[in-house]
Amino acid sequence: MPHIDINADLGESFGPWKMGNDAQMMAIVSSANIACGGHAGDPATMLQAVEMAVAKGVSIGAHPGFDDKEGFGRRRLPLTIDEVERLVAYQTGALCGIAALKGADVRYVKAHGALANWGAEDADIAGAIVRATRAVLGADAVLLTISGTQLEKVACDSGLNYCSEIFADRGYQPNGLLVPRGQDGAMIHDAQAASARLIEFMQTGNMPTVGGDPISLEAGSICVHGDGPTAVELARDLRQGLEQAGIRIGAFVK
Amino acid sequence: MPHIDINADLGESFGPWKMGNDAQMMAIVSSANIACGGHAGDPATMLQAVEMAVAKGVSIGAHPGFDDKEGFGRRRLPLTIDEVERLVAYQTGALCGIAALKGADVRYVKAHGALANWGAEDADIAGAIVRATRAVLGADAVLLTISGTQLEKVACDSGLNYCSEIFADRGYQPNGLLVPRGQDGAMIHDAQAASARLIEFMQTGNMPTVGGDPISLEAGSICVHGDGPTAVELARDLRQGLEQAGIRIGAFVK
Amino acid sequence: MPHIDINADLGESFGPWKMGNDAQMMAIVSSANIACGGHAGDPATMLQAVEMAVAKGVSIGAHPGFDDKEGFGRRRLPLTIDEVERLVAYQTGALCGIAALKGADVRYVKAHGALANWGAEDADIAGAIVRATRAVLGADAVLLTISGTQLEKVACDSGLNYCSEIFADRGYQPNGLLVPRGQDGAMIHDAQAASARLIEFMQTGNMPTVGGDPISLEAGSICVHGDGPTAVELARDLRQGLEQAGIRIGAFVK
Amino acid sequence: MPHIDINADLGESFGPWKMGNDAQMMAIVSSANIACGGHAGDPATMLQAVEMAVAKGVSIGAHPGFDDKEGFGRRRLPLTIDEVERLVAYQTGALCGIAALKGADVRYVKAHGALANWGAEDADIAGAIVRATRAVLGADAVLLTISGTQLEKVACDSGLNYCSEIFADRGYQPNGLLVPRGQDGAMIHDAQAASARLIEFMQTGNMPTVGGDPISLEAGSICVHGDGPTAVELARDLRQGLEQAGIRIGAFVK
Repeated sequence: MPHIDINADLGESFGPWKMGNDAQMMAIVSSANIACGGHAGDPATMLQAVEMAVAKGVSIGAHPGFDDKEGFGRRRLPLTIDEVERLVAYQTGALCGIAALKGADVRYVKAHGALANWGAEDADIAGAIVRATRAVLGADAVLLTISGTQLEKVACDSGLNYCSEIFADRGYQPNGLLVPRGQDGAMIHDAQAASARLIEFMQTGNMPTVGGDPISLEAGSICVHGDGPTAVELARDLRQGLEQAGIRIGAFVK
Repeated sequence: MPHIDINADLGESFGPWKMGNDAQMMAIVSSANIACGGHAGDPATMLQAVEMAVAKGVSIGAHPGFDDKEGFGRRRLPLTIDEVERLVAYQTGALCGIAALKGADVRYVKAHGALANWGAEDADIAGAIVRATRAVLGADAVLLTISGTQLEKVACDSGLNYCSEIFADRGYQPNGLLVPRGQDGAMIHDAQAASARLIEFMQTGNMPTVGGDPISLEAGSICVHGDGPTAVELARDLRQGLEQAGIRIGAFVK
Repeated sequence: MPHIDINADLGESFGPWKMGNDAQMMAIVSSANIACGGHAGDPATMLQAVEMAVAKGVSIGAHPGFDDKEGFGRRRLPLTIDEVERLVAYQTGALCGIAALKGADVRYVKAHGALANWGAEDADIAGAIVRATRAVLGADAVLLTISGTQLEKVACDSGLNYCSEIFADRGYQPNGLLVPRGQDGAMIHDAQAASARLIEFMQTGNMPTVGGDPISLEAGSICVHGDGPTAVELARDLRQGLEQAGIRIGAFVK
Repeated sequence: MPHIDINADLGESFGPWKMGNDAQMMAIVSSANIACGGHAGDPATMLQAVEMAVAKGVSIGAHPGFDDKEGFGRRRLPLTIDEVERLVAYQTGALCGIAALKGADVRYVKAHGALANWGAEDADIAGAIVRATRAVLGADAVLLTISGTQLEKVACDSGLNYCSEIFADRGYQPNGLLVPRGQDGAMIHDAQAASARLIEFMQTGNMPTVGGDPISLEAGSICVHGDGPTAVELARDLRQGLEQAGIRIGAFVK
């Protein structure tokens, strides 16, 4: 029976401000990327997300980002490579501390926003993320990466376990890259279309593209969004669509 | 051969601002209480302190404090008990993350400033610190406490390892409490006097007091200061004085 | 023609996190208490609120609170009196700076959350708020206070202009204090009931109470909430109810 | 009688961490660039600097920088032009608020660190700084700039008063730029040499250069450092040297 993971960025509330619907999303995903107090999150939000993940059997990943709540980790701060390594280690360790209060383990790392984009492009930044992940979470940790990026390559070269993700709601180009936002086909707003495309991918290993032939991709996880007015509904429909097509949803690391 | 630990609060610089002399103090202490980014410290400062501790064979402890750099963790913020538990878990975990970059372990917790004072007085706050310490650092972790406090009592009652400290530069009253700052005998500024007093304590188990008979105290560690114009000199002289009297300096937990 | 002000706390979003509906509320209130980056707000949020206030002819007030976004300014931080004075001056000045970018003036101060509660009870804290308001906004500034508090008394005694507010959605006791939350009659959820009560107050000077006779109150402003699922609707209905009863809505200071 | 201003960055302590010696520097400079809580400073530090400036008759300028204490405002954060404008307005307004507590006015702006460097190179960023300065401090405000930069040009073009500064301890190249740090002649460590060079400049309008003829420069202020082990001594000697040569030290704006 074919199987795949579904992951989402969760625990992104802060103090009095709520973002997304963690409670509902935890019933849909198999892996939760939990913000660590850098771009979002605080100890209370983190613990609540951990508790819900434990209750639903969802795997817990650290979701470190630039220490920039005002910019939500979407601005590329000019850190040195060593600073990036320490940032990831600090935030991942902090989530381990919070998870420990519930006897839970953090099993993987997925970088957030501008940090993820930087690591996708730059092998040195990727190296910092890989080193911090292995140092803090141990040799059997996993890095959740985007297919075809420097981060995936560096993780692979360094012998760190990794899992590549594809996006439920983004169109692909024939060259394997995402259709840039703003162009036709960049966003897939219809849950049925998103499901159909992913089912085809799961059955054939080939991902349909915008304006070209399907391309071969390797992926162990589907990234869905936890925020926005229709996020929960889309994610739920996607999961149902996959399950009805005989695809089992399960975490890439337990 | 009698032996005792010497501990100091280190890693309390922040960004461009330096505090204390970590490099020199690491050659004197056997245990380093490293700030975790709450009341002081940042990932670079933390890593540097960890590196120096590893190089000198000094045991590493987390030194969590209120998330209040402007007040240096000396203001008692009105957190709930659960918030205190999460604060200690978050910061201790963060230091574990940083220490992991150097393959080092965090072995104990010592609360800072207003948080330590609160835990010394209040059994509920003490309980939160004890729970977070055990959850994050494991069953063989140690809590570094002040003799005669609620925190020591709660650690003891809950079966968590603890080590009690005495102060190198503070006078004791016959009732076992410190002479309040501002009163005669509160501060001991002379290294020789401080050493003599501690040597007597180590040889007899009794601590001289101000205006009374020596009292029986139990202590596994001596707290020295890492900051101030004469801190390094005083600490060094104290260590030499103890060693010359045949007392070995060694960490209470490795 | 009788007239009164309507005020609300606005500009309380932060970075990616939204709170309330400033755009809709600005069409309802005559005075906007704009958060200053302490308990909430950031320069972008502040400027947007200022722009909307200018566009709608709404008076701009500073809404300083403890520098504690995680606690949303609802925790009483143990500041000294001088620290409170500087906090209010810093945040009020910062809003003046942002308002100046649109050629707008900040005309009044209303303290937020735990800071407001403290100033309501404690004459020394009230004094700090009064001094900072006058120093930063000048001799014709106004302090928006709650009727019957220390803050109102200290403002009055020191000759600073003040305006007292009543709450649209809170029940009063015969002694003039609010019915504590959780007790019967504490909250008024029905816009019509809220309007009817305020119309009676405007026509008679007496405020209906829970379980007693109406009491005489002096008030120049009605506080409504900008947050919560029905906040906008309630505020709009309240304003309409008042206007239909011949009461004009206008700012207490221009 | 020829005259010139001496300015220094002051108020750069934060919470428990001290930087520089504001008390001694205030007796030497005629203009104090006071940090505003972004890259350094807090309300207590700011107020203390304002008090000392008032006591010594020193002009007060806002010294806004990126909101990045960990990096001390030396990292160029990728803000938009509008974000820079709001940052400068927020911080300058905040200092105005603090200064108002002592009845003092903020009379000029000097950007800090990476923000200053950016404004020196980029006309759009310079425009944001110019607009914020004029909006917050009014039409008779002054921008303290570096000679030959975009910031100076934009201030000039937009009709904002400006004053250009030269550096007491940096060597100039024949092209008018500073000798890059690390090259021979970049730093002038000798107070007498620094004085002699500035006296020549004051008497002739030409600044000696490293490896070339003196160049014509226009400058109304000399920038000295307030931090470092010999900063106070160097600044004091420089001032004495200038005064002994008949040059009066006075603020460029009162």
